[in-house]
Amino acid sequence: MEIALLLYDRLAPLDAVGPFEVLRNVPGWTVRTVGKQRGEVRSEGGSLGLVVDHTLEEVTEPNLVLVPGGRGSRTLMHDEEVLSWLREVDRVTKWTTSVCTGSLLLGAAGLLEGRRATTNWLVLEAMRQFGAEPVGGRFVEDGKVITAAGVTAGIDMALHLVAREADPRVAEAVQLGIEYDPDPPFDSGSPEKADPEIVELVRRAASAGGPLLEPSG
Amino acid sequence: MEIALLLYDRLAPLDAVGPFEVLRNVPGWTVRTVGKQRGEVRSEGGSLGLVVDHTLEEVTEPNLVLVPGGRGSRTLMHDEEVLSWLREVDRVTKWTTSVCTGSLLLGAAGLLEGRRATTNWLVLEAMRQFGAEPVGGRFVEDGKVITAAGVTAGIDMALHLVAREADPRVAEAVQLGIEYDPDPPFDSGSPEKADPEIVELVRRAASAGGPLLEPSG
Repeated sequence: MEIALLLYDRLAPLDAVGPFEVLRNVPGWTVRTVGKQRGEVRSEGGSLGLVVDHTLEEVTEPNLVLVPGGRGSRTLMHDEEVLSWLREVDRVTKWTTSVCTGSLLLGAAGLLEGRRATTNWLVLEAMRQFGAEPVGGRFVEDGKVITAAGVTAGIDMALHLVAREADPRVAEAVQLGIEYDPDPPFDSGSPEKADPEIVELVRRAASAGGPLLEPSG
Repeated sequence: MEIALLLYDRLAPLDAVGPFEVLRNVPGWTVRTVGKQRGEVRSEGGSLGLVVDHTLEEVTEPNLVLVPGGRGSRTLMHDEEVLSWLREVDRVTKWTTSVCTGSLLLGAAGLLEGRRATTNWLVLEAMRQFGAEPVGGRFVEDGKVITAAGVTAGIDMALHLVAREADPRVAEAVQLGIEYDPDPPFDSGSPEKADPEIVELVRRAASAGGPLLEPSG
């Protein structure tokens, strides 16, 4: 399994690295980072640099493509070079996947049309503009396209992919290897469960475009 | 809150990026990546590059230091430059923390002596060689030192830190922001819960030094 992980400026690094850590641990699976140019991209907020190893031209036949989200997705969804690449690779992939607002890129490339899809809860309704039916949940599999909800949902989706594509026993082993026995301190991880005041706080901060809880430059 | 995130060759990227994604989203908190040299380090297995922005000399007074794990920790635990830096910054930190085998570095620096500590379940007993008492669980707080269990436990620890140090409401908001409402596909995330055959498989693969499930070069 050859996996292409798209990296770009202002991505949310956990969107990419959560699934990366799962997929890289499957025997025989290789993950390659892909982007518009080789070299460093910076995370949303700027405080972490990740490295693109391969240009889009160099990776044309992945078996699985994974598109993480982040504020930079709003810019990239108007980038025809990236959208064309997504359409090209989608012709040959076995799985085309996204995490969080990575789905905006799949949608803008026309790959969600007529499909059920999910994304970050803050932009779930935006799926309609791509001809997709917005669906809640950790991830949604429709044909060969799997879209995951916000950030950490990518970990659940990746384990699901391993179980589907390799073997459930392999997925169990990887889950143990990353000691994924989560124990969140609060029951606030989805808008249905969180205190409505917290939901409103996060919603306002997000529309202000800053870090989660305050407007920023 | 000034946070120093130590990066080094052959780290497990999710150990670093899980907590990074939590901590970077707290208003007023800044995370800086620190390492022996500025520039790229490669993950365990080599397929992901992360960027060190600051040398050890440049970051001497963080409020919080976070040490991720990964196979490279076995090399780094004999690196006197890094151990000295850890001892130096520990004098001024409010919190000294590790994820997974990052605890081997804290231990080798002498910072776990007389403390209760945890780490990846595969090396839990190794805590004794540092004069620490091995304890199970997602993370262990003893004084100002918090050690987290394997890989994904860093996310739980980071949310705990936000609740302790900023405010529980902020931690709830960050948890919602990263949509951390985990739904692991299996109940295999700890050695107590996983099928004993899976535990044995992961144990053997780990001692062979390869990816989780097979020996490698």
